[in-house]
Amino acid sequence: MRTLWRQARVATLDDGPDAAPGGWIERGALVTDGERIAWVGDEAALPAGLQVDAEHALGGALLTPGLVDAHTHLVYGGHRAREFERRLQGASYEEIARAGGGILSTVAATRAADDAQLLALAEARARALQAEGVTTLEIKSGYGLSAEHEARCLRVARRLGERLPLTVRTTCLSAHALPPEFAGRPDDYLDAAIAWLPALQAEGLVDAVDAFCERIAFTPAQTRRVFEAAQRLGLPVKLHAEQLSDQGGAALAAEFGALSCDHLEHLSPAGVAAMAAAGTVAVLLPGAYYFLRETQQPPVAALRAAGVPIALATDHNPGSSPTLSPLLMLNMACTLFRLTPQEALAGMTCHGARALGLADRGRLRAGLRADLAVWSLEHPSELCYAFGQRPAVRVVQGGVERAP
Amino acid sequence: MRTLWRQARVATLDDGPDAAPGGWIERGALVTDGERIAWVGDEAALPAGLQVDAEHALGGALLTPGLVDAHTHLVYGGHRAREFERRLQGASYEEIARAGGGILSTVAATRAADDAQLLALAEARARALQAEGVTTLEIKSGYGLSAEHEARCLRVARRLGERLPLTVRTTCLSAHALPPEFAGRPDDYLDAAIAWLPALQAEGLVDAVDAFCERIAFTPAQTRRVFEAAQRLGLPVKLHAEQLSDQGGAALAAEFGALSCDHLEHLSPAGVAAMAAAGTVAVLLPGAYYFLRETQQPPVAALRAAGVPIALATDHNPGSSPTLSPLLMLNMACTLFRLTPQEALAGMTCHGARALGLADRGRLRAGLRADLAVWSLEHPSELCYAFGQRPAVRVVQGGVERAP
Ligand SMILES: [Zn+2]
Ligand SMILES: [Zn+2]
Repeated sequence: MRTLWRQARVATLDDGPDAAPGGWIERGALVTDGERIAWVGDEAALPAGLQVDAEHALGGALLTPGLVDAHTHLVYGGHRAREFERRLQGASYEEIARAGGGILSTVAATRAADDAQLLALAEARARALQAEGVTTLEIKSGYGLSAEHEARCLRVARRLGERLPLTVRTTCLSAHALPPEFAGRPDDYLDAAIAWLPALQAEGLVDAVDAFCERIAFTPAQTRRVFEAAQRLGLPVKLHAEQLSDQGGAALAAEFGALSCDHLEHLSPAGVAAMAAAGTVAVLLPGAYYFLRETQQPPVAALRAAGVPIALATDHNPGSSPTLSPLLMLNMACTLFRLTPQEALAGMTCHGARALGLADRGRLRAGLRADLAVWSLEHPSELCYAFGQRPAVRVVQGGVERAP
Repeated sequence: MRTLWRQARVATLDDGPDAAPGGWIERGALVTDGERIAWVGDEAALPAGLQVDAEHALGGALLTPGLVDAHTHLVYGGHRAREFERRLQGASYEEIARAGGGILSTVAATRAADDAQLLALAEARARALQAEGVTTLEIKSGYGLSAEHEARCLRVARRLGERLPLTVRTTCLSAHALPPEFAGRPDDYLDAAIAWLPALQAEGLVDAVDAFCERIAFTPAQTRRVFEAAQRLGLPVKLHAEQLSDQGGAALAAEFGALSCDHLEHLSPAGVAAMAAAGTVAVLLPGAYYFLRETQQPPVAALRAAGVPIALATDHNPGSSPTLSPLLMLNMACTLFRLTPQEALAGMTCHGARALGLADRGRLRAGLRADLAVWSLEHPSELCYAFGQRPAVRVVQGGVERAP
């Protein structure tokens, strides 16, 4: 099945030797052949005698790669709206914790929800992302925090990828927080989490391993133990690093060849250098920065100067980033972190894909996956400029148009 | 036509003598009779023998007043996405102005667009607001800046109110910026703008008069001239006040019994006191605060302490608040300005209505207009907590359900 998409303004995000200048084709066309892109270029240069089974004239609409949301915690029970309200009414963190709030309230709600409930909740969230052009999505565990419940959450993530026209990549984040039954015994908990990892891997539930290295979570030494366990199993690693303080987590992750370090507001120059040397992607999460009212910005200029690829993601989670809008993240990356629109779009496409270890998508180039978004806009700057907008979008995943 | 809405969680926003405690009815019902609310209360207390023509069981969904967006600049041509991009690429304001950017580029695009184009653009924007529960909308002129083009823009706003199931209130903001043909002659421009006001009023195009009192716009003395002209015509006034500096605009507006002062980041204690004494509403615009990366917050605690009603609005405009999401404004008001969810919702309902001089809506009480929103949520805190969300909503305007 070959399909021609023509009359398109194409943002290819391609920087290869044969790519259009600036990754931009003003009067472009694209041909898909099954799941792959067969051809992309100026419409005037379409191969003579091209035979296609279907043809779509886009009337000058903007064509981009499908969006990649490379950092989400999409599978969980409950929400934390009442906690949000209590905090604004003046309650302290302690009072909220005493009232059963905080991350452990999400762990309790997740454990209490059955599989069907978790799937229904996560599916509604994934559909909202898809409705803004997402075709590839990472989902982390980390609200189960036991062998049984971490497996349940990862299975729900896998099921989502089977049910919806989305590629779902799963990340085991058992080292997210300390469950109540291990209170005061973080190393014992990590012993357990490291012990249950091989079974999760054997079941095909783990594409990568992540940890939260922070004063309020796990130490660098503990993080190292998690990474060593992943390394023994041949699993790539990622890290929630330097979000609230500089723990040296990025350098540690780089030592293990991490796919990405995420958050990074407090990343040091040494951390930037280590990530650059290791080819590790910086995943910036402006939603959490906004929601937590952070003032320390990630070192964007240093990351640029060092050539570290910058990805963007929603970090969807109920505690610090209850957003389901990748487009709002594009605007927040520009407005709050001063990325250019071109950088922001690359962050949600090619660099997001790289943060997941996926080399077959995120750019429009012959041979890559035909994951596309067609926007009722004329230029990528419009995707980033408006905020709280939802322009009409057509989503193509693996060469097939999907109802968003 | 009487309609019963039952199985509702009702946020009445009502603080009258017969109102439910805290404006909240956990198991509520509401009856509309034509355009009006006939009854609201506990479902268990529904009048015996009530006869209705239609009945909707809401299954515990959240019922609120329809939202009121009390400050928008919805009618204009073009957009400023490329200017946004150039600024992020490092261009200075001067370079952008030299390249034809800034507010005057919107004035030029507005003047160049014909009436049908202006209407189509504004209608798409109004539909996006309606899709998030808006039933009443204010629209300002201020991108025409001539007798002909100000009238065209206000007529388009009026047409919108006739075409869509929305109440549109029009505000004449000819004192928004200095048009190029009056460069260097602000008082001559205001002479002209004051001279064309009666004809606009006679055509039924002016519900209120507004001005932009700021170092980069008009002085307090010039603003006073505009207000005196409005007063002579019996038109209520509003003011873009103390956005970038304290000009004493709020006190000036209060002297004229202004319906509202809007923005207010630099409002002084004297300004707060003057607004409180005059019963003037404070309209906070977190979208512009966010997009312009302001750091000076409006004095929310002082406004609260003085009993000044706080409204919220999108301030939709292409230069400083290109958003069409009232729900995102609720979150931004909580996240950035620390309003409680209850205060934020009041800001987009009852206090928004008051900022427009409308006493017949914004609360759910017998006798008021039946403008309602039914959300697929359980509590108002959820409207404010998530950001970049779009929960399903049913919109009832004047007692009739409308397709959003
Ligand atoms: Zn995270
Ligand atoms: Zn305004």
